[in-house]
Amino acid sequence: MRLLKEFDQKDPAKIGQELHRFAEELYPICRSITGDGIRRTLAMIQNRISLQTFEVPTGTAVFDWTVPKEWNIQDAYIKDRRGKRVVDFQDCNLHVLNYSTPVRATMPLSELKPHLFTIPANPEWIPYRTSYYKEDWGFCLSHNQMLALEDGEYEVCIDSTLQDGHLTYGECFLPGRSAREVLISCHACHPSLANDNLSGLTVAAFLAHFLSGRDLRYSYRFLFIPGTIGAITWLAQNRAVTERICHGLVLTCIGDRGRFHYKKSRRGNAEIDRAVSHVLTHYSESPEFLEFSPYGYDERQYCSPGFNLAVGCLMRSVWGSFPEYHTSADNLDFIHPQPLAESLRMCTAILDVLENNRRYRSLNPYCEPQLGRHNLYHSTGGDGVGEDITARLWVLNLSDGEFSLLDIAERSGIPFSLISQAADLLCQNGLLAVIPDDMARETPKHR
Amino acid sequence: MRLLKEFDQKDPAKIGQELHRFAEELYPICRSITGDGIRRTLAMIQNRISLQTFEVPTGTAVFDWTVPKEWNIQDAYIKDRRGKRVVDFQDCNLHVLNYSTPVRATMPLSELKPHLFTIPANPEWIPYRTSYYKEDWGFCLSHNQMLALEDGEYEVCIDSTLQDGHLTYGECFLPGRSAREVLISCHACHPSLANDNLSGLTVAAFLAHFLSGRDLRYSYRFLFIPGTIGAITWLAQNRAVTERICHGLVLTCIGDRGRFHYKKSRRGNAEIDRAVSHVLTHYSESPEFLEFSPYGYDERQYCSPGFNLAVGCLMRSVWGSFPEYHTSADNLDFIHPQPLAESLRMCTAILDVLENNRRYRSLNPYCEPQLGRHNLYHSTGGDGVGEDITARLWVLNLSDGEFSLLDIAERSGIPFSLISQAADLLCQNGLLAVIPDDMARETPKHR
Amino acid sequence: MRLLKEFDQKDPAKIGQELHRFAEELYPICRSITGDGIRRTLAMIQNRISLQTFEVPTGTAVFDWTVPKEWNIQDAYIKDRRGKRVVDFQDCNLHVLNYSTPVRATMPLSELKPHLFTIPANPEWIPYRTSYYKEDWGFCLSHNQMLALEDGEYEVCIDSTLQDGHLTYGECFLPGRSAREVLISCHACHPSLANDNLSGLTVAAFLAHFLSGRDLRYSYRFLFIPGTIGAITWLAQNRAVTERICHGLVLTCIGDRGRFHYKKSRRGNAEIDRAVSHVLTHYSESPEFLEFSPYGYDERQYCSPGFNLAVGCLMRSVWGSFPEYHTSADNLDFIHPQPLAESLRMCTAILDVLENNRRYRSLNPYCEPQLGRHNLYHSTGGDGVGEDITARLWVLNLSDGEFSLLDIAERSGIPFSLISQAADLLCQNGLLAVIPDDMARETPKHR
Repeated sequence: MRLLKEFDQKDPAKIGQELHRFAEELYPICRSITGDGIRRTLAMIQNRISLQTFEVPTGTAVFDWTVPKEWNIQDAYIKDRRGKRVVDFQDCNLHVLNYSTPVRATMPLSELKPHLFTIPANPEWIPYRTSYYKEDWGFCLSHNQMLALEDGEYEVCIDSTLQDGHLTYGECFLPGRSAREVLISCHACHPSLANDNLSGLTVAAFLAHFLSGRDLRYSYRFLFIPGTIGAITWLAQNRAVTERICHGLVLTCIGDRGRFHYKKSRRGNAEIDRAVSHVLTHYSESPEFLEFSPYGYDERQYCSPGFNLAVGCLMRSVWGSFPEYHTSADNLDFIHPQPLAESLRMCTAILDVLENNRRYRSLNPYCEPQLGRHNLYHSTGGDGVGEDITARLWVLNLSDGEFSLLDIAERSGIPFSLISQAADLLCQNGLLAVIPDDMARETPKHR
Repeated sequence: MRLLKEFDQKDPAKIGQELHRFAEELYPICRSITGDGIRRTLAMIQNRISLQTFEVPTGTAVFDWTVPKEWNIQDAYIKDRRGKRVVDFQDCNLHVLNYSTPVRATMPLSELKPHLFTIPANPEWIPYRTSYYKEDWGFCLSHNQMLALEDGEYEVCIDSTLQDGHLTYGECFLPGRSAREVLISCHACHPSLANDNLSGLTVAAFLAHFLSGRDLRYSYRFLFIPGTIGAITWLAQNRAVTERICHGLVLTCIGDRGRFHYKKSRRGNAEIDRAVSHVLTHYSESPEFLEFSPYGYDERQYCSPGFNLAVGCLMRSVWGSFPEYHTSADNLDFIHPQPLAESLRMCTAILDVLENNRRYRSLNPYCEPQLGRHNLYHSTGGDGVGEDITARLWVLNLSDGEFSLLDIAERSGIPFSLISQAADLLCQNGLLAVIPDDMARETPKHR
Repeated sequence: MRLLKEFDQKDPAKIGQELHRFAEELYPICRSITGDGIRRTLAMIQNRISLQTFEVPTGTAVFDWTVPKEWNIQDAYIKDRRGKRVVDFQDCNLHVLNYSTPVRATMPLSELKPHLFTIPANPEWIPYRTSYYKEDWGFCLSHNQMLALEDGEYEVCIDSTLQDGHLTYGECFLPGRSAREVLISCHACHPSLANDNLSGLTVAAFLAHFLSGRDLRYSYRFLFIPGTIGAITWLAQNRAVTERICHGLVLTCIGDRGRFHYKKSRRGNAEIDRAVSHVLTHYSESPEFLEFSPYGYDERQYCSPGFNLAVGCLMRSVWGSFPEYHTSADNLDFIHPQPLAESLRMCTAILDVLENNRRYRSLNPYCEPQLGRHNLYHSTGGDGVGEDITARLWVLNLSDGEFSLLDIAERSGIPFSLISQAADLLCQNGLLAVIPDDMARETPKHR
């Protein structure tokens, strides 16, 4: 399946607008790691792709962790003496410390202040803060908002519930010709934040839609899960599945205008690492590659030593490194149609490599075949040859059953798509034969 | 056998002149991949070295190829209305599209033009063009010559024959103490072009002459063959021999004033690759090393995946990269005695490494031997030591049976010749013993 | 044992002064490779640490060498016609060519001159010269001193003895929990030279003192030996011991103000090489790393091919590369308390790595453990984490039984001490288990 070629027949401007429009729809919802916010989000994704949702009860043991109580919120505000809402959850769901316990109280400013979070360096922005695993309550507001608060009594209300319920996640499984799987994972637990991670959600949903119904080499599994606890829960309940995962990507912060960053898997030189490196190098501007570290998003869990899956993390600007990160400035103006569409294209190109990266055997291994006789060469000597013919020569020369097409693309410096086209053409002309997939060989476990 | 030392006892200026003179003798012959031009060339080489020639009939199947019809040419010209030869094969054999079918016709300029080849960017030069595998005819001429052609009728004559015959090649085999072989290959099919490849022919012939009658570790096989089809034919008829080839070089474009370039074998780190790298780095100015690619001269065939021989390509200026390449400007003024002699010396130095690159075992592996006691050290402490003593210390330290002398030269940064001399001296003094050649070990097949 | 932490509880200024004071005590003694000078030196070290001395008779065969005659000296001078000592051993023991045979003679300046050694480039300095293995006599003096000598007769006296006796060396063995050993070796044969090698002697003696009585993982063996012949003698008499040596350092020239230089062992990537590289990179300014070469100090013998021990050489300024080397300018003013103390600290930090570099196994290998639940994480999300928590995450992620703590420190870029502390804390909290020492695995012999 030539995924990239198929993708490039579409209008990228239109795709970008659709991606951004879907992000706009999802933006207002107050998501958290549990509760109705993520349920509504998954339902909206379900309108687009075939998504199965799972509900895991509070208290379920998942490795060293426990599924927490379910959190829901209706309203929250701080009212001043005149009854005016000076901080209002209805304006922006970031105003509440995510996972706040319910509160109804009146208190002086001095007592309220320890529960207020601001960003003095960016006094107009509201921070995004959470307290999942320590029961607490609080408000996030702009620093200027806080400075404007006069001494005196305030009415504080957080109309939330924190009680036994479920953790919800969504899974879209697209079966391929092989039981071997590619995992695409994104966290769906952040409230009104656009790059982190509506960008990941929307690109993943569109990617799943693009793959749906196609004849695929691999099976694909898309996870829309709460960060950390969601990945842990999924892994705890799907240990057998992990044996079949050959390649994977965590998608986050891929809607802004920054250049691409790829954080390698713990293995460092897995096929996914090499595929992403090849694709970003050949198809994007000045990408950067980061070594694996055990701090970040859900690749932390997929790359924990017991699993050691070949899962890297694709980003544009790196989480935590741009000032808008985890603030109200990471809004719909911070992500853009063009980079969203380009990120989707880059994912497609990466999967195109995985789908087509096979080993071949030259059927004329002794000396070159006479390409001219097969109408695969020019017939007048004395000049150079084009990159298409060079690609054929590389494929023929290295197809001894050891080198994959990605190996050949790397060694020749020729883009994978040209190498892959050359292999197709040579097969059609009876000069090359593909080596059938061998599950044992292609699924290297651990280092 | 200390080949380099023996070579350096000769007068390089004299050698250079002799090389150039031989190139002058060979220059006028109109060679092609078959026919009397290459036969005459081989006969002239036979006057100098013991060369066996082989005739392979037209139609012989050689892997995916077939030996073509034999081409010969007597004369060719374009005459204008006044009967004047405006393009004349007798002036320069490049004027005919090599392998042109016979033609006798009169035609207007407009009809002739599609059969004319020029180089507009270098309007004084005649290009060299061939059409081996598609029957065609044509003339090559300078762009200015073509511009001077007036409209009107022209008489066109190519007095050639293209019919069943033979492909001819020459082989010089010098037996050594071992059946293991070093292959030196050069294409002998180009007409009046000096750097490509009279330079390779003459250096190879002189190298074979220099080695003749010597006591050699390896057997040497020199091939003077038509490019591509010759290498393919030879390989098809000598598959058993290829099992014994341990190292090899293709020689081309080694008579001009450019610095050395070495294109590595497909293996990339074979002993020949390391030997050439060491020699050029230590004995020539600013050499450049090129990774293997499956486009170039006959290393393409030797390095095809079924053979994967350790054969690289030694050049000065790289074929295709200098403007004179495949034009009448690649003439006897473009090659020079000094670079020809230096290229021959470099080949000798490379073979010197192969001949002497053995593994040794220190007979005093525990601590250093007392070199002073063996008259191999200075006796007054407190100062540094010279490179000769350093070489001895390196050889003693690394001669545990694992490291070859080339390994030691690479690790120490000391020229191979000094390392090799040190090993000899240590052997003479009973401190070191050579590990005998082991055919199995020293002939690594494939990667 | 947290050696570095223990060391850092001491006052470095005080340690530096003590080191320099000990060097001052040792400085006046006229040492050589045999004789009473080295005996007195070892006796003074014996006052500080538990040192066993060994006497090996003249004539003992040690590999390719023979223990030489014992040399002792009482006095030496050159007197002018007026009976004035113009060169006087009592002023400076460098004045005598070390190992000079006895002489009593009167001779003209012209006859004396071939026995005089000076440094024209540094005309105020006295050179240090030896003639151990060729019987000879001579004087070393400043170039200005020599220029001042008038023509005429001189009385020459070297009141030395060179006769059968012993070679003396000292060994301090500190048993640890394992029979596997760390070797610390320094040459103790140089007369009044401070950096080379009173610096090595004093640091080694203080290091042995610091380790004495501690509960150690490894056993430690400190050698105070004459250079070259001493190492060879020790190795010849302790071949069985060498099987147990896992790591080692030669200490020399570590008292001057230069930055650190480390010359790697012959293996190049042994644990000692990596430990020193890590420590110097993280704890010192701009260290330099030198590849192994078979010329230098006693690492030459330890790294001879029959032993191939993992022994490197730690220096500040590199022997032979600073002008004061082997001259009277390498005196007590050339070494300083602060660099001596820092060198001792660096040795301690290196041993700290060796003592604590183990492999661990995460007891929660599937996903991260919930560090917050174990009070090993902050509990309010939305911010970054400190290096202590990052260290815990790295240790947990890479502790699959394959990676050692040094591997983890290298890969994470976090100092070993933080990584090691994290491992301790995780063990205490039941999240990590150490993999017991396995002598077979941890003692890689040869490459």
